[in-house]
Amino acid sequence: MIRLFLEVGRLKRLPRMGWLLRGVSNPESVADHSFRVAFITLLLADELRRKGVNIDVEKALKIALLHDLGESKITDLPLDAQRYIDKKKAEKKAVMDLLLEVEDRGLEYFKLFEEYEEESSLEGRLVKFADKLEMVLQAYEYEKAGFRSLEEFWSALEYLKKSEFYKYFQEIIDEIEKLKKS
Amino acid sequence: MIRLFLEVGRLKRLPRMGWLLRGVSNPESVADHSFRVAFITLLLADELRRKGVNIDVEKALKIALLHDLGESKITDLPLDAQRYIDKKKAEKKAVMDLLLEVEDRGLEYFKLFEEYEEESSLEGRLVKFADKLEMVLQAYEYEKAGFRSLEEFWSALEYLKKSEFYKYFQEIIDEIEKLKKS
Amino acid sequence: MIRLFLEVGRLKRLPRMGWLLRGVSNPESVADHSFRVAFITLLLADELRRKGVNIDVEKALKIALLHDLGESKITDLPLDAQRYIDKKKAEKKAVMDLLLEVEDRGLEYFKLFEEYEEESSLEGRLVKFADKLEMVLQAYEYEKAGFRSLEEFWSALEYLKKSEFYKYFQEIIDEIEKLKKS
Amino acid sequence: MIRLFLEVGRLKRLPRMGWLLRGVSNPESVADHSFRVAFITLLLADELRRKGVNIDVEKALKIALLHDLGESKITDLPLDAQRYIDKKKAEKKAVMDLLLEVEDRGLEYFKLFEEYEEESSLEGRLVKFADKLEMVLQAYEYEKAGFRSLEEFWSALEYLKKSEFYKYFQEIIDEIEKLKKS
Amino acid sequence: MIRLFLEVGRLKRLPRMGWLLRGVSNPESVADHSFRVAFITLLLADELRRKGVNIDVEKALKIALLHDLGESKITDLPLDAQRYIDKKKAEKKAVMDLLLEVEDRGLEYFKLFEEYEEESSLEGRLVKFADKLEMVLQAYEYEKAGFRSLEEFWSALEYLKKSEFYKYFQEIIDEIEKLKKS
Amino acid sequence: MIRLFLEVGRLKRLPRMGWLLRGVSNPESVADHSFRVAFITLLLADELRRKGVNIDVEKALKIALLHDLGESKITDLPLDAQRYIDKKKAEKKAVMDLLLEVEDRGLEYFKLFEEYEEESSLEGRLVKFADKLEMVLQAYEYEKAGFRSLEEFWSALEYLKKSEFYKYFQEIIDEIEKLKKS
Repeated sequence: MIRLFLEVGRLKRLPRMGWLLRGVSNPESVADHSFRVAFITLLLADELRRKGVNIDVEKALKIALLHDLGESKITDLPLDAQRYIDKKKAEKKAVMDLLLEVEDRGLEYFKLFEEYEEESSLEGRLVKFADKLEMVLQAYEYEKAGFRSLEEFWSALEYLKKSEFYKYFQEIIDEIEKLKKS
Repeated sequence: MIRLFLEVGRLKRLPRMGWLLRGVSNPESVADHSFRVAFITLLLADELRRKGVNIDVEKALKIALLHDLGESKITDLPLDAQRYIDKKKAEKKAVMDLLLEVEDRGLEYFKLFEEYEEESSLEGRLVKFADKLEMVLQAYEYEKAGFRSLEEFWSALEYLKKSEFYKYFQEIIDEIEKLKKS
Repeated sequence: MIRLFLEVGRLKRLPRMGWLLRGVSNPESVADHSFRVAFITLLLADELRRKGVNIDVEKALKIALLHDLGESKITDLPLDAQRYIDKKKAEKKAVMDLLLEVEDRGLEYFKLFEEYEEESSLEGRLVKFADKLEMVLQAYEYEKAGFRSLEEFWSALEYLKKSEFYKYFQEIIDEIEKLKKS
Repeated sequence: MIRLFLEVGRLKRLPRMGWLLRGVSNPESVADHSFRVAFITLLLADELRRKGVNIDVEKALKIALLHDLGESKITDLPLDAQRYIDKKKAEKKAVMDLLLEVEDRGLEYFKLFEEYEEESSLEGRLVKFADKLEMVLQAYEYEKAGFRSLEEFWSALEYLKKSEFYKYFQEIIDEIEKLKKS
Repeated sequence: MIRLFLEVGRLKRLPRMGWLLRGVSNPESVADHSFRVAFITLLLADELRRKGVNIDVEKALKIALLHDLGESKITDLPLDAQRYIDKKKAEKKAVMDLLLEVEDRGLEYFKLFEEYEEESSLEGRLVKFADKLEMVLQAYEYEKAGFRSLEEFWSALEYLKKSEFYKYFQEIIDEIEKLKKS
Repeated sequence: MIRLFLEVGRLKRLPRMGWLLRGVSNPESVADHSFRVAFITLLLADELRRKGVNIDVEKALKIALLHDLGESKITDLPLDAQRYIDKKKAEKKAVMDLLLEVEDRGLEYFKLFEEYEEESSLEGRLVKFADKLEMVLQAYEYEKAGFRSLEEFWSALEYLKKSEFYKYFQEIIDEIEKLKKS
């Protein structure tokens, strides 16, 4: 397990490339991002449950913690890079390799990762929703601090509004949209 | 909820003070640390369950994600500061204030935080164990990168060896001790 | 004395938290700030003397150099933290401990620190004035460089305008206000 | 052309991932590296010519300036990533796209890039040699500054010693080896 | 030669002072800048040749790679400093000393450097043109990222428009001017 | 006066070049250094007075705060640069220009600066002593943090031991020497 923990440690050193390339100096790490995704997932999942949605909170949290694991190997490839690299395929292989470290549960974790990647379960889709929400919040925070040219990150707002979860979290999304305009 | 998510965003900007004061340039953030604590908790909790321990994995993960929340307000006070500041008391108050944002579940989350702080539940103690383990790994990583004078962080190894969880994770702890000596 | 000099060295590594939390990347250190406070104090104190005010310049300079000493122990607690921590009390204790290093003069220095903290002498108040002036200048410089959301730091301008020293340094304060608007 | 110049500007912001992942804080950029590769190429190529080797110095310099161009799109993928990503293929496609910006000479430049990638010309191989030499020097410099765990970068020394250029630059390579041992 | 390569390595660590002093956090290095100057020179020189201008491309590239060499000794003195320091004279001496390392070709390289410094050859002037163009692009990029107060760097645009090369690259210069206004 | 305060603000952004060039990542600023020099001067001057030496403490503190003022214009030129630049002369001119801002007292301050530069008064020499002491402490701190190749900075220890002040502060200097060996 130690080796897997050390791999995860690399996520602390890896910068989120989108911000870096747009000139944000010393931007957040992949781990920074992943942490808030997991935190957001926690609150949203509990809220969904409260609202009567049949959701497995434990599973959602696990997916959130696992969803960027592959980046310890393939790094945070910016969108531009993905025109030349099949990120999905590379990431899948990397995650599989990494999870070999924990033989017994590796397969279970891999399936969770796939539910995120393929958006094939409610919990997987919720983490995708939290992932986009986190990015939009970070774009807002960087803009508030003075950084510019981050418009393209706001496009995730459209994703959020079209999501099946929008009806539950409309208030949150609308608040973000208001922040943006201020 | 947005306001709480923005508060959590501060954990990305807050450096872990212990490293900073010992001269690690550009050290990890509180969020970086928290992320790996949660990840470690995930693997340890599942492993405990596999070994027949009656543990609530969902609860453990929630505690891990909440355990450093108060630092968004009081920052990561170094050990030295704690001779002048009652960190525990201040943190408790801060966490309570922060969780007012989510009225309905605030109290539940606060209780989870307290289980960590007071080490009053199995899950709370496991996160404390993961927290120390994470710090020891980070000390190892910084030393491997060339940083020095981090001996005092290794003292957490003693905590780990005296823990109730040691019998389950002896192999991991022994491996870390070996890394240290190499 | 060496130990005290090493403690003061920590002020070089400690970031000023207000800027950091608002997203200024790689902000000034506490020592950076303290240096300009002392420099400003030097010029203001000499100017006051020239204008016939009976001020002890040596004492003012000593206060300026000592005024943030306690932060080597308690760090630069942001305003938010001070709702949970009695900073004044903690800082006082820390300064006292630190000055034990220089037995013979420790008490004298502690009294100087208190004159700043309590604004109980002309020199103590002048350093407080210089401290606010320095912060306003830094806010201006960060805004000029492109950083945003620093409005709250400008509120110190009100403090400066209500100060007993305003009548002597009106020209300077008015110039800063003009800079702000440009 | 402007768009190509702006693309090249991204190389200033992209960190060299190998160092970053081993804990070098704030490591060199891809442009930093590329600059010294070009400089080394200049000196080695002129020296070869002086020694009677029939080498096209202009061509060698052009290859040096173009050899990392593709990384503006695909970033500096660390060795680990290359187990999951066909870097060579991705880079080739990226370089081709980038050079579409300069229609008329794009093909000529692309051929130069390929000579490097395939080591299919004397000049292409010389830049590869300069690329390895540059990396070994950087490893030495980081070790000299106190960073550790960079052994694997020294393996490039073997490449240098087996190269066709070793007989011309034996003195340089031997000097580096001595530096390493000191 | 090794010693000269190590000297050039210092250019990676030296920040470009103009940006630093205006508050750009963690700005480009001298090597970052030099790399793009050389890259721009490559494209412009080839373009000039294509347009029938009799230009020595190899020579232009060499000048580009050598033009900031002296800064490894005297650092990137900001404009302000040049009111107190005869930069030209100091740089010339430093370059001469540095090139003593490569006895045989040192004089040839020094002459190339002088052609840049004195703008005494077509190739020297082209590198000067590329140097200004690079700086204007960087100013644009920093402004796009949110940094401010970089107006003075745009004055180089006037230099570019008055240059003998303007007629060949009018399209590029006009495009930059448009970018500026956007 | 504002303009002078803004000039002093540049000292916060200027890195100490000696450390930077030896690979210390993100080293102290000139203001960081100056702050501790002034702090050390305060303690040493008071101690000398206590020991019966006839020293003007106010004057010593003023010299300490002014001694690096010129670097806001000429930057912190590393030793290497000083073989090509007459730093003393350039700095003197810069300080003079800067102090024109405070007409009335400019000349007085300039004389204080000269007493440091020429070591022509007891107070000027004490600040020089504090300046060297500060640098040695910083070298010790960087080495303790893991940075290497800082031996040349320790040579200042010889200066300290030959100084007229050594007999008063032998204990401190000996302690530093012991730290070095540990």
